[in-house]
Amino acid sequence: MTVHPPLSADRALAVRLFDQLAEMSRDDPGVTRDAYGAGEQRAHDLMSKVAAELGLSCDVDAAGNLLLTLRGTEPNLPAWVVGSHLDSVPHGGNFDGAAGVVAGLAAISGLARAGRRPRRSVIVVVTRAEESNWFPASYIGGRTLLGLLPAELLDLPRSDTGRPLRDHMRDLGLAPERVARGERLLTPDRVHGFVETHIEQGPALEAERIPLGLVTGISGSFRYRKARCIGAYGHSGAVPRRYRHDAMFAVSDLIQSLDSLWSDLDSTGRTATITFGEVFTDATQHGFSKIPGELNFCLDVRSADVALLDEIHARMMTFITAIEKTRGVRFALGEKTGSQPATMDVELLRRLGTIADRLGIAYLSLPSGAGHDAAVFANAGIPTAMLFVRNQNGSHNPHEAMRIEDFHAAATVLTHLVLE
Amino acid sequence: MTVHPPLSADRALAVRLFDQLAEMSRDDPGVTRDAYGAGEQRAHDLMSKVAAELGLSCDVDAAGNLLLTLRGTEPNLPAWVVGSHLDSVPHGGNFDGAAGVVAGLAAISGLARAGRRPRRSVIVVVTRAEESNWFPASYIGGRTLLGLLPAELLDLPRSDTGRPLRDHMRDLGLAPERVARGERLLTPDRVHGFVETHIEQGPALEAERIPLGLVTGISGSFRYRKARCIGAYGHSGAVPRRYRHDAMFAVSDLIQSLDSLWSDLDSTGRTATITFGEVFTDATQHGFSKIPGELNFCLDVRSADVALLDEIHARMMTFITAIEKTRGVRFALGEKTGSQPATMDVELLRRLGTIADRLGIAYLSLPSGAGHDAAVFANAGIPTAMLFVRNQNGSHNPHEAMRIEDFHAAATVLTHLVLE
Repeated sequence: MTVHPPLSADRALAVRLFDQLAEMSRDDPGVTRDAYGAGEQRAHDLMSKVAAELGLSCDVDAAGNLLLTLRGTEPNLPAWVVGSHLDSVPHGGNFDGAAGVVAGLAAISGLARAGRRPRRSVIVVVTRAEESNWFPASYIGGRTLLGLLPAELLDLPRSDTGRPLRDHMRDLGLAPERVARGERLLTPDRVHGFVETHIEQGPALEAERIPLGLVTGISGSFRYRKARCIGAYGHSGAVPRRYRHDAMFAVSDLIQSLDSLWSDLDSTGRTATITFGEVFTDATQHGFSKIPGELNFCLDVRSADVALLDEIHARMMTFITAIEKTRGVRFALGEKTGSQPATMDVELLRRLGTIADRLGIAYLSLPSGAGHDAAVFANAGIPTAMLFVRNQNGSHNPHEAMRIEDFHAAATVLTHLVLE
Repeated sequence: MTVHPPLSADRALAVRLFDQLAEMSRDDPGVTRDAYGAGEQRAHDLMSKVAAELGLSCDVDAAGNLLLTLRGTEPNLPAWVVGSHLDSVPHGGNFDGAAGVVAGLAAISGLARAGRRPRRSVIVVVTRAEESNWFPASYIGGRTLLGLLPAELLDLPRSDTGRPLRDHMRDLGLAPERVARGERLLTPDRVHGFVETHIEQGPALEAERIPLGLVTGISGSFRYRKARCIGAYGHSGAVPRRYRHDAMFAVSDLIQSLDSLWSDLDSTGRTATITFGEVFTDATQHGFSKIPGELNFCLDVRSADVALLDEIHARMMTFITAIEKTRGVRFALGEKTGSQPATMDVELLRRLGTIADRLGIAYLSLPSGAGHDAAVFANAGIPTAMLFVRNQNGSHNPHEAMRIEDFHAAATVLTHLVLE
């Protein structure tokens, strides 16, 4: 066993950075850091500034991802890459994404404070546009970082402005034409391993009273972001039950069918999630005394099991066909999008587990139901792992929370990893 | 049997009035005549002008209802009162309400054209604000006409402007303070009978291929216009099924429970309608990757059977208690509003049926699931009836339709009635 001098992440730096981030992105309730907008950019600028103070070199790729590099004693070796994104959902929490960036900087600062210099270079990557509320595609930051973003996705409109991704990039002085050509500063063969630290976005660690999670895999998904059910408007009092084409009752049938399927799957240990996150009748047409002739909805189905995603989709199409017949409605699901599941690297997980054991930090192995840029790294053949930090109130909401001691435990595991 | 010279309503006048109304209130798709707004006022002005051309006296009450009077040969007798409202739902159809006013004027013009003068005066009433989309209360026009509107309802905000009813009245030079005192131009003892002609708002006449309906009763209702279900927002992928507080799944449970109850009632001939006309997640908080932590909805339940309304309400509260427990959510239903059912006058219906038989017009007796100002007249002790005109596409929607020959049949029955 190697005897180390006391070595931990820089907790004070982390506290300061989280406070500064919260302050600069407050948008009550919660925080908003809009992807390729002012909110995200302010956060990127803060990290560049701190990186410079820590003596790191700072590179910005064509898509605006930051690469903040601590040069190792053997810089020709493939580097450790750590980090995450800085954008948030509208009115989200302060830690989703940011924790992974701050963990990287706190680890590097911790090394410096202990007078330790790693053999391999350590690159903190700060990605863009991970929250697909803004642009309807997964992992834009991770994919541009590795030169993998299909050029046509540069035409995606931002949900609030309606303007395409390429224009938002240009607003920030970036180079979408170079993104389109697949230019990149980071190549997989130069990466020894990638570790993304992130708050857990579910309740498992809190429920089990364990501060740290080692992520075994990342769910994939299928999504319909602009689905509609079309029935017929009618007077709420004057149309008997058998003559109705009620879009709300029809979508309710779909929800109940999927819920029943989900319950069955859950009871046999087959894990998935099913969410109708946005649901709305047409505000220009609806009325309390009108049968709703149309309902708009989003559907997001996730699982780490590709076969299960396919099975749920197939069952859903069967449900829809039956509902269309019984309710006299039509479903227009619109474009299907989604992402592939990803498996984490077993050897890297074993090393992280060994470090946690040595430091006396309890951990749980669990899958991630949420998507993360780490999926792109894993599917590009890079040994990849994720550390989850216990979180009290879920994520993507203003009440998202994290105890600094739990964060510090994860960042300290990371500090030890990059030194090995 | 009395031998009449040929007597029918003035079809050409009706066609012209419907065309003018459609033109002045077009708001694609459909027409909008906002209650106590420019849309309704233009329509009232048109009717006043036509009444003057027909030689009728024109009175406006404190609430802006019109009383267009053809003086009978025995003006001291209680009068026949006919008519309806002129406001429409937003993007509604041209005939809902307007048909009743036009029928009255077409009947009077038909009498004049045939050189016939009735014994009793005939008053065409043109009411206000019948569509409760605008102000959240039933029968504002009918109640002000009879001096029955509770003064506090003058504070009701209009749904689009947020400004109170009394201010909208003042904008039109009307006198809400006199409305508050219950002032009226029409007293029940001066009314021999009230007949409201209206398009059928359901599909029964069309399905049965019958042009005319005699309405036997008008449904009452209970309503929750601003109900909410409150759960907890969370990441769509990261929260396992058992930890969710999904407001959309919870409301879907409620819809399914009510639908199942409705289906049972329907199969035993107990008639009601159940509608969730407006449903929406909070656009400032929702996201396709967020579990919806809140869902807003309207509920409208109608039946001509008071006991059945009470029974459905009681069952609903039981459902809600169970759903709150199983889904970990809370329902905040908000204010309960509604209206009482009303029964039509049997003797008046018999006379209308006799006239239709004599004219060779087929008719069906049926209840009205929709509410109408006629309910106020009936519940004020005035002998009241309604004529339904067959309608191809429901009401409260832009595709609402009516064949002019069906309208003409109803207006002609009315013409004969007021002459008796």
